[in-house]
Amino acid sequence: MTISPTSQKSARRSIWRDPRKLVDSVARSSPARLALVVFALVALTFTLLLSLPLSAADGQATPLHDSLFTAFSAVTVTGLVTVNTAEHWSFFGQVVILLGIQVGGLGIVTMASLLARAVTRQLGVRSKLLAQQGISTGKLGEVGSLLRTVVLTTLAVELALAVLLVPSFIVADKSWTAGLWHGIFYAVSSFNNAGFVSHPDGLNGFADNLWILVPIMVGVFIGSLGFPVFMVLMATKFEFRKWTVHTKLTLLVTTILLIAGAVIWAIFEWSNSSTIGDMDVGEKVFHAVFASTMMRSGGFSIVDPSASSPVTLLATDALMFAGGGSASTAGGIKVTTIAVLFLAILAEVRGDSDVRTFGRTITEGALRVAISVLFLAATLILVATGLLMAVSREPLDRILFEVISAFATCGLSVGLSEELPPFGKYVLSALMFAGRIGPISLAAALSIRQRRQLYRFPNESPIIG
Amino acid sequence: MTISPTSQKSARRSIWRDPRKLVDSVARSSPARLALVVFALVALTFTLLLSLPLSAADGQATPLHDSLFTAFSAVTVTGLVTVNTAEHWSFFGQVVILLGIQVGGLGIVTMASLLARAVTRQLGVRSKLLAQQGISTGKLGEVGSLLRTVVLTTLAVELALAVLLVPSFIVADKSWTAGLWHGIFYAVSSFNNAGFVSHPDGLNGFADNLWILVPIMVGVFIGSLGFPVFMVLMATKFEFRKWTVHTKLTLLVTTILLIAGAVIWAIFEWSNSSTIGDMDVGEKVFHAVFASTMMRSGGFSIVDPSASSPVTLLATDALMFAGGGSASTAGGIKVTTIAVLFLAILAEVRGDSDVRTFGRTITEGALRVAISVLFLAATLILVATGLLMAVSREPLDRILFEVISAFATCGLSVGLSEELPPFGKYVLSALMFAGRIGPISLAAALSIRQRRQLYRFPNESPIIG
Ligand SMILES: [K+]
Ligand SMILES: [K+]
Repeated sequence: MTISPTSQKSARRSIWRDPRKLVDSVARSSPARLALVVFALVALTFTLLLSLPLSAADGQATPLHDSLFTAFSAVTVTGLVTVNTAEHWSFFGQVVILLGIQVGGLGIVTMASLLARAVTRQLGVRSKLLAQQGISTGKLGEVGSLLRTVVLTTLAVELALAVLLVPSFIVADKSWTAGLWHGIFYAVSSFNNAGFVSHPDGLNGFADNLWILVPIMVGVFIGSLGFPVFMVLMATKFEFRKWTVHTKLTLLVTTILLIAGAVIWAIFEWSNSSTIGDMDVGEKVFHAVFASTMMRSGGFSIVDPSASSPVTLLATDALMFAGGGSASTAGGIKVTTIAVLFLAILAEVRGDSDVRTFGRTITEGALRVAISVLFLAATLILVATGLLMAVSREPLDRILFEVISAFATCGLSVGLSEELPPFGKYVLSALMFAGRIGPISLAAALSIRQRRQLYRFPNESPIIG
Repeated sequence: MTISPTSQKSARRSIWRDPRKLVDSVARSSPARLALVVFALVALTFTLLLSLPLSAADGQATPLHDSLFTAFSAVTVTGLVTVNTAEHWSFFGQVVILLGIQVGGLGIVTMASLLARAVTRQLGVRSKLLAQQGISTGKLGEVGSLLRTVVLTTLAVELALAVLLVPSFIVADKSWTAGLWHGIFYAVSSFNNAGFVSHPDGLNGFADNLWILVPIMVGVFIGSLGFPVFMVLMATKFEFRKWTVHTKLTLLVTTILLIAGAVIWAIFEWSNSSTIGDMDVGEKVFHAVFASTMMRSGGFSIVDPSASSPVTLLATDALMFAGGGSASTAGGIKVTTIAVLFLAILAEVRGDSDVRTFGRTITEGALRVAISVLFLAATLILVATGLLMAVSREPLDRILFEVISAFATCGLSVGLSEELPPFGKYVLSALMFAGRIGPISLAAALSIRQRRQLYRFPNESPIIG
């Protein structure tokens, strides 16, 4: 679906008459830049709101490094905090945070879905991915149409979660108003994979309350799959043959990582008495599954990560880095990026000339985007780790954990964020922003600009390895 | 240069009459497996030799975990040690180690060059790389011919280094015999990028002796470029236009990493009084250049890495991981692997359909091999780090440094190797072996088996990022 120069020109003539066409046009001509600018503006707006004295519980203006960090953490649905959400912020401040999560989550999913559609067209999927799920494929108004679908779906799922969570919190907190507030907060926070908690000690007080933990896990899991997968599952009524390659790969890799994470977590925490060592087998298994669900981007915890074993921290680093599904509120380099890289290696090992999966060929374009995302991620993490090491005396494992958690917008924390000097907080804020917007817009910017070259050089590759 | 079934069959009939044909045939049909088996046998032979009571200074048999570690470190030209080379081993033991370095170094370069030639043929370079440098391209005896060239070149360079180093050590050590021994030892150890030292406190006693340090730096640098580059430089008399893409990329990336490493090292050690903080500017700059030269695989140090800043350690991790030239005694994932990945990303950013450099197109095959090498490396390092964390209580930065040093056969050490329990020593030994043989044989095994597929699936890629 390339756009001919004439249709571009006529589009340009009419955009000033219809704002929807303007958005369409910018989204089409430079979607990555649009995503960046919009997201930065939204994040700064929430920074301003949280800087107001009204937002803080003590009525004092919050310092910029804390309000900016919190706003960026909310809008990027990360969940890292430098101040206790329930104690530092007023009710108004907490509503602002919840709104930031909701706006950020919706924005990410919409933008990522739009960009992903543009990208997948280039990569060879064409309009299959979203178009067949009943979203308008007309050239005008498709942003609005997609946004409407995303908003309605999101609100429906969040409502369902709230229906489960509100009664649970009313019982647990023994208060109608508190139950209502916390139920809504956790419904939004979990489906958006935000990891923000509205109790002073988070979910620690509910570590054995399955009526609360299970809906939160389900919300995080559904949210981490991503809108494209979610829509395909709805539209195909779980009929495997009709699934897109994207859906199959996302579900397969998610399942593998979920099981692997739970097994590794269970092995290395099984007899750690600071975490689950003293619990019975059933509780241990539940804790392992809960932790594994949260590692790839949920960010909720009922066990303090800093109490877990060094190997657990390392494995968590790897799983946070992997992240969740594309065009979801989960972060990381995304499970399909992992899948494409792995499939390319498998093809090499087998000696196949094509990279194949589920009866489809994965293009070289997808492979190059995957490498780019991986390299960008590794470079950002390396540089941020170096910067934080230069300004603090913390050991590498703590810094690396917090840095990867910020980049992957995961939100699990060893408590470093609140201890860092302002410069360190800005570094993590920038990393959350880059980690949220980076892979999406990089992938979009890269794939959309693909152009044909008029001549070819002869082949000559260096020796590798 | 594919081999038809008939020529394979006739080759099989005649190999039993000519052992050279046997080697040729195995090298051709399964070069990766040959490399693995030969290398394992050589490493185990040296383990046996070092286990003899004769090899130890105290006349007692050395425990297996130390003799195996040292033998593997020597044969893989790594330079990590669990016992002090000059103090623990007898003169016989030290000669065995020197012999291990020489055999290992020659073996690696020969195998890698052979495999690289096979690989580059597949990747599109055909016989350009080595054939044009006067090495026989006949099917029979090419192993022997290449080996002869490698051996003669290696001995010539080592002789030149020894001619410079022996007098310097005679002056420094005030002894003819000691000077002769140390001069030869460091000539072999430096050109092979082995990093083994024959003084109890290594090169620390010569930290201001340029007559010793400069030849060692030059030896390490030349050795790290790799035989294919070295031969091209010799054959083309440094005429840039005639260089292969491999030569251009290796020299370019090596130069960039050398400068970057020196600059970063200088910045973060400049006022560190445990390392170079109290020196004058000239000494500081020399130390930075020396350290940077050694990071990418030399492994010699005149400043204790464990005294340097955390950021320096992190940057060293990255540069050790990058490593040196392909088919060299340097380790790591190799500079051309980095180059190909970077060029692929650059092509994506520019929107080019081909990955191009120096007027040549880099094939998708090379790209996939590069990803495979990168992924293998990252996975090995992650798993080894996890294993060592499970058996020791050391912080992540120390473990990661020693693990990457072992994988990249670099040999820089924070002193962890000697402190680890036997299991940890075996893990590092296996890692040195895998790091040495892995990327080469992986690349060979992968590229050589490339086969055409008879049908194509339709394109469909998942969403990335
Ligand atoms: K999160
Ligand atoms: K070395």
